[in-house]
Amino acid sequence: MGKYRVDIRDVEFNLTEMLKVQGWQKYGLEDQDIKGILTEYVKFVENEVFPSREPSDLIGLKHVDGKVIVPEALRAPQKSFYDNGWFALGMPEDIGGTPVPEALYVSCMSLATGANCAWMMYPGLSRAALNVINLKGSEFMKTHIVPPMMSGAWGGTMCLTEAGAGSDVGALRSTAKPLGNGKYSIQGTKIFISSGESDLYENNIHLVLARTPGGAEGTKGISLFVVPRFRINDDGSMGASNNVVCSKLEHKMGIHASATCELQFGVTGESEGWLIGDEFEGMSTMFIMMNEARLYCGIQGEAQGNLAYMMTDTYVKERIQFGKEIIHHPDVRRSMLRMRAMSRGMRALCLYTANLFDAAHENKEIEGLIGLLTPICKAYCSENGFNVSVEALQSHGGYGYCSEYGIEQFVRDTKIATIYEGTNAIQAIDFVMRKILKDGGKSLTALTTQMVASVQKLDPQFKREQELFGKVLMSAQTTMQKISEWAKAGQHNMILQNCTDFLNFASQMVVAWRLLESAQMAAQKVGTASGDDKAYYESKMVDFKVYCSQFLVHNLSIAKTITDFSEDMCSLEI
Amino acid sequence: MGKYRVDIRDVEFNLTEMLKVQGWQKYGLEDQDIKGILTEYVKFVENEVFPSREPSDLIGLKHVDGKVIVPEALRAPQKSFYDNGWFALGMPEDIGGTPVPEALYVSCMSLATGANCAWMMYPGLSRAALNVINLKGSEFMKTHIVPPMMSGAWGGTMCLTEAGAGSDVGALRSTAKPLGNGKYSIQGTKIFISSGESDLYENNIHLVLARTPGGAEGTKGISLFVVPRFRINDDGSMGASNNVVCSKLEHKMGIHASATCELQFGVTGESEGWLIGDEFEGMSTMFIMMNEARLYCGIQGEAQGNLAYMMTDTYVKERIQFGKEIIHHPDVRRSMLRMRAMSRGMRALCLYTANLFDAAHENKEIEGLIGLLTPICKAYCSENGFNVSVEALQSHGGYGYCSEYGIEQFVRDTKIATIYEGTNAIQAIDFVMRKILKDGGKSLTALTTQMVASVQKLDPQFKREQELFGKVLMSAQTTMQKISEWAKAGQHNMILQNCTDFLNFASQMVVAWRLLESAQMAAQKVGTASGDDKAYYESKMVDFKVYCSQFLVHNLSIAKTITDFSEDMCSLEI
Repeated sequence: MGKYRVDIRDVEFNLTEMLKVQGWQKYGLEDQDIKGILTEYVKFVENEVFPSREPSDLIGLKHVDGKVIVPEALRAPQKSFYDNGWFALGMPEDIGGTPVPEALYVSCMSLATGANCAWMMYPGLSRAALNVINLKGSEFMKTHIVPPMMSGAWGGTMCLTEAGAGSDVGALRSTAKPLGNGKYSIQGTKIFISSGESDLYENNIHLVLARTPGGAEGTKGISLFVVPRFRINDDGSMGASNNVVCSKLEHKMGIHASATCELQFGVTGESEGWLIGDEFEGMSTMFIMMNEARLYCGIQGEAQGNLAYMMTDTYVKERIQFGKEIIHHPDVRRSMLRMRAMSRGMRALCLYTANLFDAAHENKEIEGLIGLLTPICKAYCSENGFNVSVEALQSHGGYGYCSEYGIEQFVRDTKIATIYEGTNAIQAIDFVMRKILKDGGKSLTALTTQMVASVQKLDPQFKREQELFGKVLMSAQTTMQKISEWAKAGQHNMILQNCTDFLNFASQMVVAWRLLESAQMAAQKVGTASGDDKAYYESKMVDFKVYCSQFLVHNLSIAKTITDFSEDMCSLEI
Repeated sequence: MGKYRVDIRDVEFNLTEMLKVQGWQKYGLEDQDIKGILTEYVKFVENEVFPSREPSDLIGLKHVDGKVIVPEALRAPQKSFYDNGWFALGMPEDIGGTPVPEALYVSCMSLATGANCAWMMYPGLSRAALNVINLKGSEFMKTHIVPPMMSGAWGGTMCLTEAGAGSDVGALRSTAKPLGNGKYSIQGTKIFISSGESDLYENNIHLVLARTPGGAEGTKGISLFVVPRFRINDDGSMGASNNVVCSKLEHKMGIHASATCELQFGVTGESEGWLIGDEFEGMSTMFIMMNEARLYCGIQGEAQGNLAYMMTDTYVKERIQFGKEIIHHPDVRRSMLRMRAMSRGMRALCLYTANLFDAAHENKEIEGLIGLLTPICKAYCSENGFNVSVEALQSHGGYGYCSEYGIEQFVRDTKIATIYEGTNAIQAIDFVMRKILKDGGKSLTALTTQMVASVQKLDPQFKREQELFGKVLMSAQTTMQKISEWAKAGQHNMILQNCTDFLNFASQMVVAWRLLESAQMAAQKVGTASGDDKAYYESKMVDFKVYCSQFLVHNLSIAKTITDFSEDMCSLEI
């Protein structure tokens, strides 16, 4: 296993230099506090989370008599995470949380996720479920479910998918029959449920989408239910089994320690649940957390890409071939420059987006921007976290393909992020159809206006990049024009067959923009900086140049793919 | 596990329509014979090889008391392969082989490799070793080693890599001391040896690179030795252990059933070997088979990409979401079009290259062309076989990430092909430095001249593609000019940092060219064709269009990356 390393300077740069504490006053945190929290968090991750990564992958899960037994290696980080208040970080104060700026919370989450993605999914999903319950739950739930979930005694899940209902959630067939006592009897089988069953928690609180009698077809007839693994007595104590059975544990490419379960409700006996949110409003209740869940998917890519990059940085500076460390071989150098620019670009994007959450509630424009950036974070970072991991594997040669350095695990673990929480194709459709066309292009125009201003003010040393970015902005216009024409002509298949390319185009523009802003600030500071600081600022300027010449440049050809797209590509039989 | 399916029409098109039987007369095979052999081979692969794929991945290998035990599932295809003459296919007649055109042999090899890559490596490496022994070995070896290797009683390996000598083969430290009786005593430890030890064969014949006393440093002091696992008595019978010990079995991302071994020579006792080829000529003796071995690496990508595509084609035509088979969703359609164009493009490239082998011995120009196309086949097909597998996984959604349909296995299994037989970075360096610059650009010019002619004669319905290809050919010139300038100025680091991009550029040009020729022929035949034939020819025309608009188009931006490359990218500290 390679050694754990984190580019903490870059995390701090994003938090304390780029995002500043705009709107963070309410948290009463100075730069030093932020750095202090990060330092403690890194210690936790390095000493407790990272060592659990390899054994949890190798040993995986056991499914015995319907119970799921996690690898022993997970118990220490799990206990420490709750006991030392890391789960409470970023949660509301009234339920025992420690509010911090979203970007700081996400930075921490990213560190833990990079170090053991499979483990982090247990508290991660629990947090998502807890947030829904805390926001929409009854007094009973707030009194008796929220506290044990905060303490880590109980966990939580989100149960959407069924065998015939994946991307098409509206096709689900699970039912909820009123029992007359305010509760419902849930029946159905859910698949691909992360953390669906495990001995990390005493009880699991499932959020389950199901249909009540008389509801409409499709998503409109769906409601959300709180269904515990063990029943909860009136005094809040844990009761008998609620007949939620893990009938299958999936065998997966990666995240071997994350329990992906098939769950049967109401098969071996009655599974009772409570309605949460209004009847038939199941989708919107579930979607309360969707922006955050999708951002978090992006973080899974960003986090693993960044750690894979750092571990490779160590390797290429130690491994000797042809009489020198391989970092001195130009092709390896090229890979490292690409990996760093992409990894840091993803970080800048995710933290910028996370920071918008803090200001979102008061501001429609920011909400629109979050809506636009969410599918970008989700799809682009999951895709490129995977790509960086693949390039990290390649840089390790034969050793990368073997499990020795722990690099191939990144490739296997990251891949899932392009699929769940809405596949990347679903993100592309959401991006083009809802976030741009339905919005009349308002949010996109606001964003590109900001980019134009950034490009215009660029330091002269970035002349080449300024020129390229200018061309890309122009081709963004012609491409959007093409898409609008198709929309007006009702040629939706033409749009839908190009939206993955357009999402990719837009994503690279946004990441380049965040790296541009970073490089611009670095250029201002580098003159008076010295030592490590100077080297760091120089590296930020290089990152922007590399990103432009290796990634952004491809926007010119992506634009050509879209604008030259011919109708017969949509019609011929395949 | 998904169902096995093969695009046999496309294999036949390449063999009997595109490559014709130019120069194949010597084999006395008519089109019908070729189709007959393919039909029988497909039966063997479908019934015996493919069913072994999943269990051999799941069960993997056992390492007990230095012995490596393969999964039971491998024994049936292994026996059948040798017993039914499939190993003999394409081998010389004088040792009991059945000579066939190289392109036909490679087509068959590809089918078996796609269906179980990990297994195919055992006879594949044995064949490579056997070819060296048959060409360069002593009479004793031809009499006593070749026959049991032909029958499948014995296997073979190639032992190059050591812990400190990966890409840098010249750094190896294994030694060979003359014993005075014509034999040598071999000492050293080799790593990453495929098929290094297994109970599929009674004896293993290792080809081992080592240093004799007094040899120069680096590759010039290296010789090649034949070192059996068990000694061979004068009468050819198997003798005592030759002290070749499997001291470690690697735990890998994929090809779980392929035994990747650390082998110790001369540690537990003397390991005897014979010199093969001249002393100090070890590298060139080993490299006799290198073009073929590298083409075969490309085939591993091509083969698995093609099977992953076909299995996905079945899935997307059966899986229903939003009330229709998902092939009717435009984004899935886009993926399928991309996967087909890429998979068939790789096949066309590999079979075209294989076919050149048949004419190579008489013709310097063809030898140059093979030299140029070999790193293209190796790097591009290994890279894109992986990419197609990843896209196949994505098209299966959550099911793709689970082992159920056997798709994620393609992703894990193909990845190794970008690394071994010279990493893809090594291929890129070989391509630019040796195959182009050292050759004075002769082979490349000959190739692009052919492409220009092909583009000029294109059917008018491909006007858009003709225009794009024309632009790409122009940018090939400016890009090569840039590289020549760097070469003249001695700026080798500039070249080396761009050669991966240039290899990719050249590869896409060549694949597009092979698809162009296919589309051109399809356009001529489609008018008089009907039924399945008509649909097939139409699909070939679509493939070319899709490849141009989705892949070749990016050559324009790759060219910009290279021509705009700035010197500071080579110098700044990272």
